[in-house]
Amino acid sequence: MIDDEAKLSSFLDAFASIKERKILVHGGGKMATRLGEQLGIPQKLVDGRRITDAETLKVVTMVYAGYINKNIVAQLQARDCNAIGLSGADGNAVIAHKRKSEDSATDYGFAGDIDAVNSPLLKNLLDDELAIVVSPITHDGHGQLLNTNADTIAQELAKTLGIYYSVTLIYCFEKSGVLLDANDDNTVIPVINPDSYVELKSEQKIFAGMIPKLDNAFSALNNGVKKVIIGKAEQLTLLVESKTGTTIVNG
Amino acid sequence: MIDDEAKLSSFLDAFASIKERKILVHGGGKMATRLGEQLGIPQKLVDGRRITDAETLKVVTMVYAGYINKNIVAQLQARDCNAIGLSGADGNAVIAHKRKSEDSATDYGFAGDIDAVNSPLLKNLLDDELAIVVSPITHDGHGQLLNTNADTIAQELAKTLGIYYSVTLIYCFEKSGVLLDANDDNTVIPVINPDSYVELKSEQKIFAGMIPKLDNAFSALNNGVKKVIIGKAEQLTLLVESKTGTTIVNG
Repeated sequence: MIDDEAKLSSFLDAFASIKERKILVHGGGKMATRLGEQLGIPQKLVDGRRITDAETLKVVTMVYAGYINKNIVAQLQARDCNAIGLSGADGNAVIAHKRKSEDSATDYGFAGDIDAVNSPLLKNLLDDELAIVVSPITHDGHGQLLNTNADTIAQELAKTLGIYYSVTLIYCFEKSGVLLDANDDNTVIPVINPDSYVELKSEQKIFAGMIPKLDNAFSALNNGVKKVIIGKAEQLTLLVESKTGTTIVNG
Repeated sequence: MIDDEAKLSSFLDAFASIKERKILVHGGGKMATRLGEQLGIPQKLVDGRRITDAETLKVVTMVYAGYINKNIVAQLQARDCNAIGLSGADGNAVIAHKRKSEDSATDYGFAGDIDAVNSPLLKNLLDDELAIVVSPITHDGHGQLLNTNADTIAQELAKTLGIYYSVTLIYCFEKSGVLLDANDDNTVIPVINPDSYVELKSEQKIFAGMIPKLDNAFSALNNGVKKVIIGKAEQLTLLVESKTGTTIVNG
């Protein structure tokens, strides 16, 4: 949606109108890949994950923490939503370490796995009525920036902020929710709890690609998050009110 | 100096070791020009000022607010200096308007002239013991990012923060200070006050290029800034203590 000006604009309208304290964690869309290509830096993906070599890290830092983050912040300001953009390095918001390659075949390069979230900083900013816009760039505390999955950052922020607030974690993607038929947006499962999750899995009614997302959702619920909602970015306002999408609850 | 890793590293050592509340306003060095060239976007300068067309604005936003800002922040974190990077859009830190071309011959494009600084935000962050790192990207409050001169941002921040603090504004450049002989770094004028400034100008002892910088310095002193120091970036620690460079004082 970041690549579609009209869709992004309407999403930011919806985000700006959320009354509660709010954080937006964004990814990078196709722009980083395009810029990499223009600069002659071949972009490699393994299982959908970007291999971040030193030159690619420069590209994603420029695109995610620079162009996309600052444009989203400026667009929110235009909607009277006072926003502040952060990378994980800013105020030590998200500290990570360089991922060790699990096997010698795949080296993800400068990919960061999260160690800690600076929740007091985030709380101070949120309590100052700032909406926080987080780019998926973290750092290791020793001067190294790292590329980190945006979904994972969202989950870690949500878990950590559960200390202070009743947190709803909303994953926005291209589908209307968790579907019984992956090709039919009208088959959204409105609510999933641990019991129905076991049942859905045993009956193989859930698309395999959704399992890691749902495992993450339950992990978040077991670690301080009140509610997880999965749905279509275009329907953010309804998602916030649990009126569409899939709501995942713990019991 | 941003283009020289060793010099930047030693500058950040010095900046990190400053005990007082501190803000670093950085420019972009040669990287934006280089990236523009790589992307086939011709970079135009008129009287040393960059003409910021829409494509160039993308480039400077990526380089200044993304790559340079986040790398400086990460480098400061590595020095146990908790820093937060801001563009002018973040938290409405610096609001500007698109410069009107003074004559029809020169259109600076998306160049921003400053209207307001959000000093309460900056004060809150500084009082939270965060060092602030500001990239020279501002916004107009209506969703438009703008490219603004870093010296001007530094001056406006210093003036506005004079409400709360005793502010020293330090301009770091490639010379050791204001020189009697522009080619001899040993001819630094240690102190300039309004009387000696009139005298130096009337005797034409000051290099013409320094006059706008000094006019700005006196303007800052007349608007809430306690002290202005001009000198070499490599000597930051001594500059902070007024032990080198040129100190400009009001009377």
